[in-house]
Amino acid sequence: MNPLCSEFTSSSRKAPEAAIGQVLIEALPYIRKFEGKTFVIKYGGSAMKDELLKNSFAQNVTLLRKVGINVVLVHGGGDAITRTAEKLGLVSQFVHGKRVTDNDMITVVQMTLAGKVNQDIVRLLSEHGGKAVGVTGLDADTIKAVPGPNAEKLGLVGDVESINTDYIDLLCRAGLIPVIAPVGYDHNGNIYNINADDAASSIAIALKAEKLIYVSDVEGIQVGERILKTICKAEAADFIEQGIISGGMIPKVLSAFKTLDGGVRKIHLIDGKFTHSLLLEIFTHEGIGTQFIAEQDNDQQENR
Amino acid sequence: MNPLCSEFTSSSRKAPEAAIGQVLIEALPYIRKFEGKTFVIKYGGSAMKDELLKNSFAQNVTLLRKVGINVVLVHGGGDAITRTAEKLGLVSQFVHGKRVTDNDMITVVQMTLAGKVNQDIVRLLSEHGGKAVGVTGLDADTIKAVPGPNAEKLGLVGDVESINTDYIDLLCRAGLIPVIAPVGYDHNGNIYNINADDAASSIAIALKAEKLIYVSDVEGIQVGERILKTICKAEAADFIEQGIISGGMIPKVLSAFKTLDGGVRKIHLIDGKFTHSLLLEIFTHEGIGTQFIAEQDNDQQENR
Amino acid sequence: MNPLCSEFTSSSRKAPEAAIGQVLIEALPYIRKFEGKTFVIKYGGSAMKDELLKNSFAQNVTLLRKVGINVVLVHGGGDAITRTAEKLGLVSQFVHGKRVTDNDMITVVQMTLAGKVNQDIVRLLSEHGGKAVGVTGLDADTIKAVPGPNAEKLGLVGDVESINTDYIDLLCRAGLIPVIAPVGYDHNGNIYNINADDAASSIAIALKAEKLIYVSDVEGIQVGERILKTICKAEAADFIEQGIISGGMIPKVLSAFKTLDGGVRKIHLIDGKFTHSLLLEIFTHEGIGTQFIAEQDNDQQENR
Amino acid sequence: MNPLCSEFTSSSRKAPEAAIGQVLIEALPYIRKFEGKTFVIKYGGSAMKDELLKNSFAQNVTLLRKVGINVVLVHGGGDAITRTAEKLGLVSQFVHGKRVTDNDMITVVQMTLAGKVNQDIVRLLSEHGGKAVGVTGLDADTIKAVPGPNAEKLGLVGDVESINTDYIDLLCRAGLIPVIAPVGYDHNGNIYNINADDAASSIAIALKAEKLIYVSDVEGIQVGERILKTICKAEAADFIEQGIISGGMIPKVLSAFKTLDGGVRKIHLIDGKFTHSLLLEIFTHEGIGTQFIAEQDNDQQENR
Amino acid sequence: MNPLCSEFTSSSRKAPEAAIGQVLIEALPYIRKFEGKTFVIKYGGSAMKDELLKNSFAQNVTLLRKVGINVVLVHGGGDAITRTAEKLGLVSQFVHGKRVTDNDMITVVQMTLAGKVNQDIVRLLSEHGGKAVGVTGLDADTIKAVPGPNAEKLGLVGDVESINTDYIDLLCRAGLIPVIAPVGYDHNGNIYNINADDAASSIAIALKAEKLIYVSDVEGIQVGERILKTICKAEAADFIEQGIISGGMIPKVLSAFKTLDGGVRKIHLIDGKFTHSLLLEIFTHEGIGTQFIAEQDNDQQENR
Amino acid sequence: MNPLCSEFTSSSRKAPEAAIGQVLIEALPYIRKFEGKTFVIKYGGSAMKDELLKNSFAQNVTLLRKVGINVVLVHGGGDAITRTAEKLGLVSQFVHGKRVTDNDMITVVQMTLAGKVNQDIVRLLSEHGGKAVGVTGLDADTIKAVPGPNAEKLGLVGDVESINTDYIDLLCRAGLIPVIAPVGYDHNGNIYNINADDAASSIAIALKAEKLIYVSDVEGIQVGERILKTICKAEAADFIEQGIISGGMIPKVLSAFKTLDGGVRKIHLIDGKFTHSLLLEIFTHEGIGTQFIAEQDNDQQENR
Repeated sequence: MNPLCSEFTSSSRKAPEAAIGQVLIEALPYIRKFEGKTFVIKYGGSAMKDELLKNSFAQNVTLLRKVGINVVLVHGGGDAITRTAEKLGLVSQFVHGKRVTDNDMITVVQMTLAGKVNQDIVRLLSEHGGKAVGVTGLDADTIKAVPGPNAEKLGLVGDVESINTDYIDLLCRAGLIPVIAPVGYDHNGNIYNINADDAASSIAIALKAEKLIYVSDVEGIQVGERILKTICKAEAADFIEQGIISGGMIPKVLSAFKTLDGGVRKIHLIDGKFTHSLLLEIFTHEGIGTQFIAEQDNDQQENR
Repeated sequence: MNPLCSEFTSSSRKAPEAAIGQVLIEALPYIRKFEGKTFVIKYGGSAMKDELLKNSFAQNVTLLRKVGINVVLVHGGGDAITRTAEKLGLVSQFVHGKRVTDNDMITVVQMTLAGKVNQDIVRLLSEHGGKAVGVTGLDADTIKAVPGPNAEKLGLVGDVESINTDYIDLLCRAGLIPVIAPVGYDHNGNIYNINADDAASSIAIALKAEKLIYVSDVEGIQVGERILKTICKAEAADFIEQGIISGGMIPKVLSAFKTLDGGVRKIHLIDGKFTHSLLLEIFTHEGIGTQFIAEQDNDQQENR
Repeated sequence: MNPLCSEFTSSSRKAPEAAIGQVLIEALPYIRKFEGKTFVIKYGGSAMKDELLKNSFAQNVTLLRKVGINVVLVHGGGDAITRTAEKLGLVSQFVHGKRVTDNDMITVVQMTLAGKVNQDIVRLLSEHGGKAVGVTGLDADTIKAVPGPNAEKLGLVGDVESINTDYIDLLCRAGLIPVIAPVGYDHNGNIYNINADDAASSIAIALKAEKLIYVSDVEGIQVGERILKTICKAEAADFIEQGIISGGMIPKVLSAFKTLDGGVRKIHLIDGKFTHSLLLEIFTHEGIGTQFIAEQDNDQQENR
Repeated sequence: MNPLCSEFTSSSRKAPEAAIGQVLIEALPYIRKFEGKTFVIKYGGSAMKDELLKNSFAQNVTLLRKVGINVVLVHGGGDAITRTAEKLGLVSQFVHGKRVTDNDMITVVQMTLAGKVNQDIVRLLSEHGGKAVGVTGLDADTIKAVPGPNAEKLGLVGDVESINTDYIDLLCRAGLIPVIAPVGYDHNGNIYNINADDAASSIAIALKAEKLIYVSDVEGIQVGERILKTICKAEAADFIEQGIISGGMIPKVLSAFKTLDGGVRKIHLIDGKFTHSLLLEIFTHEGIGTQFIAEQDNDQQENR
Repeated sequence: MNPLCSEFTSSSRKAPEAAIGQVLIEALPYIRKFEGKTFVIKYGGSAMKDELLKNSFAQNVTLLRKVGINVVLVHGGGDAITRTAEKLGLVSQFVHGKRVTDNDMITVVQMTLAGKVNQDIVRLLSEHGGKAVGVTGLDADTIKAVPGPNAEKLGLVGDVESINTDYIDLLCRAGLIPVIAPVGYDHNGNIYNINADDAASSIAIALKAEKLIYVSDVEGIQVGERILKTICKAEAADFIEQGIISGGMIPKVLSAFKTLDGGVRKIHLIDGKFTHSLLLEIFTHEGIGTQFIAEQDNDQQENR
Repeated sequence: MNPLCSEFTSSSRKAPEAAIGQVLIEALPYIRKFEGKTFVIKYGGSAMKDELLKNSFAQNVTLLRKVGINVVLVHGGGDAITRTAEKLGLVSQFVHGKRVTDNDMITVVQMTLAGKVNQDIVRLLSEHGGKAVGVTGLDADTIKAVPGPNAEKLGLVGDVESINTDYIDLLCRAGLIPVIAPVGYDHNGNIYNINADDAASSIAIALKAEKLIYVSDVEGIQVGERILKTICKAEAADFIEQGIISGGMIPKVLSAFKTLDGGVRKIHLIDGKFTHSLLLEIFTHEGIGTQFIAEQDNDQQENR
C-alpha cells in the first residue's frame, strides 16, 4: 500500500471537534462584517521587542489584511531614539514624559523612526507575506502638525493639526499595509515629533476606522483582579468617580472615549504579551482585552 | 456599580485560548481561498430528516453563502415519493434500486420533489437567513435529459444529457442558493426522473465547481476501523484491487474519480449525522470525512 | 431557369399592402415605448386549457419577451387542485368561492400548483423558445402572506402582506420569464394558498408594472352589446351607480382601479379565447379588450 | 353617460384582426433582428420630389431610426445642380451620363448638394421628428477620392478611394441620421463629384451594413411581367446570359453583387413611388421589391 | 566620423534659454487648466483671407485641439455671399449693416455659407491635421431661430431663439472641431440668416464656454494709443461714460459683457493680422489683445 | 480713471512675441506626446545642494507632474552618509569608489538616506506644490537585491536583482511623485546599499520609462569644446574607438546604451547647474544636454 497520499484522521479527534465547529460558527461572520473596514493598530510594547511575539503579531496582522481588512499600523520608538541620540553624544531630556526636541534631536527622531524602526517593521511584515509600506507624516502631506503645549520647553514636539487620508486610503485600497512613523510638519516646513498614541487616534478618526486597537503590555481595564470585557462611556465615568479606575489609566480611558466621540466605532486595549491576542480579540465574542463602546447596546457589547 | 454594560471576561478562559487562536489561524485563509468559488452539495440522509441535524446543516450552508461561497444544493427524495405514490394508490417498483417510472409516476415525482421536498428545503434555509430558490431541470432549460439504460423496463428514468449553467450562475452571482430537484426533459418534452447523485456530479462538472460534497450517513472511506482523510486516484485503484475498498463503496469511489476527471477540484464524503460536519470538513486542515484528490500533491492532500 | 432561389412576389398583393404599412406604422412605436417595461399577465381560462390557444398564448408571450418587454406570469390552478385532492381522497369545500384549506390541502395545493401546473407552463413556453422559470412565493422570500379574512373557516387561505421584487427583477433583467405560483408563507413558516388575481395585482404594484393584463374568458367590460375600449375611474363610478356595470363585474372593476391607484399604469381585460389577443391589445391603437386608465387623458385613452 | 373617456371598439373589426395579428407576428421579430444594425439608403427618384412621397419616406426613415436601426442616407441631386448651373450661366455637359466638372462646376456641385439639397433633406427629417445631420465627404475626412476614369474629359468626377467610418459611426451611435452629400477630396485637396450610387455602395461596405437599399422609381428586377422577390448571384448570371435581364439593368445587378461581395448582407431595390415601401420591404417576409442575396439559403431568401 | 546622427547644440544658445524656460514655466500650467474646457472662436477678418494668416490660424486651432481643448468655430461670410448673389444676378441690399434676405437670398446664403465657405474652412483645418466637421443650425436641430427686429424690411434675418448643444458636445467629446455656419430655422421650417457674432455669443453661453474669442482685424480695446490688456465691467461703464470707448466699439463691448453675464468666463478680442495671436493670447500671462472679465479679481486679471 | 482692473500691454512687446509663439508651437505638442508617460530622474549634484537650483529643480519636477507626466525620482546621498557616519565615530572606507558597508554602516545608510535625505526631498517638492512620497526598496518589496561583485571586501553593497513596479505604478497613477532611496534587501532579509545610477537604470527599464534623465553637474557628452545634442549607439562606438569619448565618460555612455537596450526610449544627460534645464531638455527640439537614442531616426534625433 502506497503511503504517500492516503492519510487517516486522528483517531481521538471527535471530542474537540464540536468545540472547533463552535469557534468557526462564531468567527466566520466577523470576517464578512469587517471586510473592507479599517483597523488602526497602535503597535508597541513587548510585541515590538520579543522575537516570538513579533512573529505572532506579524502573522496576525498579515492574516487580517488577507481576509480583506484594511490594517494601518502606527508605531513609536522612544527607546531606539534614545539609543541613537546617545551614540551621537546627545543627552535625552524629558518633561512630563515628553522628549525635549531641538533641531538636532528632530533629525535623530526622523532618522531613527523613519529610517530604521519603521523599515524594520516593514521588513518584518514582508517576511510573513504582507506587503507593507513605510509612511511618514511628510509623505503626500499626510500629517500636518502644530506646536504642542509647552513648546518653549519641549521644542519640536507637535500635535496633529489635520490628517490627509488620500494616501493612506490609496495604500489600503491597493491591499498594502501602511506603517506610519508619527512625524509631521507645519506650514513653515518645521518637522515635529508626535506622540504615537495621539497620532493613532487622529488617524483612526480621520479614516472613520471601525476599530482602533492599542497593542501594549496592558491586559485591559482592570477592576479588582479582573479584566473588563466591555466598557461604555457612562459607566467609565462612574468607575472614575468611584476610584475604581485611577492613576495612569484615567487619561487612557478619557482618550479612548474622545476617539469614540470622533466617530471610531470601537477602541480595544489588548495585551501584546499574549500570542494571537489580535485574532482572539477580533474573532471571538468573548475577546481577550477590553473594548470601549459608546453606549449600552446589546449587539455591540456582546460582540467584538 | 451599573451592571448593564460592563462585563468581565470569564476567569478560566486563558487555557483554551491558544487553541482558539490556532483554529482561527487555520480557518481564516480558507475563506479567502474559497470566496467566489462554487460548492455543489448533494443533500441526503439523516441531515435531511432529523430536526436538529437539519437546523445544523441549514446553519452551515447559510454561513458558507454568507462568507461568499457559491453554494448549490441538489436533493433526492425517494422516501417521500414512495409515500405520495402510496396515498394515490400507486405501487412503487424498483429494478436494481431504480424506480420504475411511468407517466403517472413521473407526475408523482414532479409533484413531490418540485412541489414539496424542494420547497421544504427552501423554507428551511430561509428560516436560517439564507435566500434559497427552488429550481427544477425544466426551469430555463437547465437539465436536458435522455432516456437512461434499461428504459424499456424503467420508463422515464433518465440520464443527464447536458447542463445549461446560465440560470444557476445567475442565481449564485446574486447571492441566492439554488436548491435543485433532479428532474429534466428531453427534446420531445418528456420529463425524466434523474438519480440525485448523478445529477450533482453533472452539475458540479458543468459549473467547474471547486468541491462536490456528498452529505450522507457515511463517515467516509473506511479502511479497517479507520476513516481515510485523503485518497488519490492511484491508491484508490490499489485499494480496490486489494479488496480494501469493496462492495457498494466501489461505484461511489469510481463515480468520485469520474467527477474529478471532469474538472471538479475535490470530492468530499462527509457524515451528516455529525453536527457542523460541513464547516469542519471545509475549514480545518484535518477535515472530518474523506476527500478525493486527483493526484499526490502536498498542498492538496494536507489541506481541505 | 433555376427555380431554387428566385421567387416572385404574389401578383395580387398590392391591395392589402397599404393596410399592412398602416399596421406597422401603428405597431412599431409601441415596441420602443414598452422596451424594458414590465407587463404582469394573469394567465387563466381557455388560454390555459385549449391546445391551440395555449400555443398562441405561448407564442405571443415569447414574442413580447423577445422584443424586450419584461413579462411576468401569474397563474392559478383550481381545477387541477380539485382533481389531485380527489385522487388523494380529499373532499374540496368552498366558502364564498374560496377553497377551505387545511394542512393536507395546502400540501396538495403546493404539489399541484408548484410541482405540476407551474412546470407545465414553464415547459409550454420553453417549447416556443422562451426561457421560463418556475417561482413560488417561498423562493427568495418573494411573497410574505398573512391569514386572510374568515381564517377560522377557510384555514390557510392568505392575503399578500408584502412582495420582495429582488428575485423577479433579477430574472427579468436576465431575459427570463418568471412563472409564479401564488403560494406564500408567514413569519411562522405557515404556507398559504393565495388568490391568483390578487397576487397578480400585488406583484404588478410592487414591480411598478406598466401593465397588468388579465387573460380570461371575458371579452372586456360590456355595455349593452358592446365592449368598452377604454374606461377611466370617474366614469366607472357612474356606470356602477347607473347599474350599467353590475353583478360579478363590479369587484373586478373595483380591483382594477385599486391596482391603478397602486401605481400600475394600465389594466387590461382581454379574451383568451381569441387568437393573438395579447398582441392585438398591446400593439394596436384600437386594442381588442377593455383598458382601465386612471384619468381622462387623450394620449392614454386613444392608445394602448 | 359621459362621453369623454369611454370608447367602444368598432363593432365590425373582428374579421381583419386575425390578419393584423399575423402582420405583427411576422414583423416584430425583425425589429430585434435589425436593432443596432446599419441600413444605408440611397435616396432618389420620386420619393425625393413628390410632396406626399417625401413625407411618407421621411416618416418611414424616422421610424426605422426610432426602433433602433442605424440609418445612413446618401443622396444625389443632378437636376438641382443643372438648375443652379443654368442660373449662373454655366452649361451642363455629360459624357456617358456623367457630368463634365471643371473648377466652376465643382463649386456649383458643392453649393447645391451640400448647401441646399442636403439641408433640405435634413429639414424634412427634422419635421418628422428625426435628428438628421448633414455630412459631406470633407467632414472629418470621411471620403477620400481619386480621379475617375476618363478624367481628361470629365474633370473633377471622382471615384471613392477610401471611407473613414469614424464620424458616421459616431453619429449613428448617438441616434442621429447622417445625410451624406457624395463629394470627396484627394490628397492634394482637390474636390470631386462622386456618383451617388457608387458612394452608397462604398459606404455600405465600409460600414459593414446589414442592408443597402436603393429607393428609386424602379419596382425591382422584372422578369416578364413579374417582379422577382429574391435573386441570388448564380441565377442572376443565368438571367443575364439568357437575356432575361438586359440593358440598363445589367450594370445595376452587377454593382449589387459587387456590394454583396464586399460584405453587405443584402441589397434591396424598391419603388419609392409606393407609400411605405421601405417598411413593407423590411418588415414583411414577402417584401415589396427585389432583394439580392449572395447564395441560396432558405432563411435568407424567404425573409427580409 | 559619421555625421548622420550626432548633432551639436548651437554654440550661441545659452543666452535666450533662460527666456525660453520662462515661457514654458508660464505656458505649461495653462494647458492643464484649459484641458477639457471649451473655447468658441468667431473666425473672421484677414485671418480668413490672407493665405499665410489662414495657415497660421489653422495651425494654432489644430494645436489647441491637440492639447485637449474643445474648439468650436463660428464663421460668417458676407463678402462671399455678395459675390455669389452678384453672379446669380441678385442685388445685395443692406439696412443698418444687415443684409435684406428674401427667399432667393436665403438660398444663396445657405449655398454659399454651408456649401462653400464652411467646407473651405473644414478643408483648411484638415490640411493642418485637424478633424473638422461642417455644421449648420439645421443639423440635429442645433439652432432654433426667430425673426429678428425689423423683419418686415430685412426678411429672413433671424435671432437665435435657442441652442441645442447635444450635437456640438458630441463632436467635441469625439475630438472633432465643429465649424458652424450661422443659419437656423424656426418652428415653421423657415430658414434664417443669423449674424455670426451674435451666433457665436449664444453658442458660447449655451456651451458654458471657458472663452469666447473674436478673431478679427481689431487689435483690442484701444485707449489713446495703447491696447488694454484686461477690462472689467465696472470700468468699461466708466470708459464709455467718459467717451474713452466710443463709436462702433460700444456695441462690441456691451455684447461682450452680455456674454460674460450669460456665464462665459472670459471674452477675448484679438488681432488676426498677427501671426500666432491665438496662442499668445491664451498661453502667456501678458496676452496680446484685450480680455473682458466680469469683476476685479487678481487671478483673473493677471492671467489669461 | 479707475486703475484697479485695467492694464495695458507693454508697449514694447511686439518684437519678442513671434519668438514666444514659436516656443509654444514647439513645446505644446510634447505635452500630449508625454502625457501619461514615465520619466525616471536620477537627482544629484549641485541641483541637490544649491538653494536656488533646488527650488528651480523642484518647480520643474512639479510642473512635469502637473502636465500629466509620471515622474519618478531616484537619489543618492553619499556625502550625507559620510557626515552621519563621522558623527557616530565610524570611518568611511571606499574600494573603487564604492563604500565598504558593514552592519553598522548599513544602518547609517538606511537612517541617512531613508530617514533624512529622502524626507528632505519630499518636503522640498511639497513646498512647491508637488505631492511626493518617500519610498525605499523595502516598501512593498520594491527592490530585491543580491550581493554585488567584490562582496567579501565591500560587504552589504548590492546589485538590483529585480524591481517590483506595482507600488511605483500605483503612486504614479495617483498623481504622486515617488522619491526612491536606493536600498534593497535579499531573500534572507539582508539590507543592501545600491548605487543610485544603477538603481535608476533598473527602475527605468522595469517601468518601461519613456526617458531616464541624469541630472548632475555634467553638461552632456563633450566633443572638443562642444556638447553633443544627440548620440546614437553606432557612433558612440566610433567615438570611443577614436578616443573622442574617453576616461570616466566611457562607463556612463555604456550604461546609457544598456538602459536603451532594456527598452527605455531615450536617456538624457543634463546639467543641473543650469536653471530650468529639465524643461528646456524636454520641451524644445534643441534641448540643452545630450540625448542617447538607439538608432538613427530622423524623428527621434531631431526632437526630444
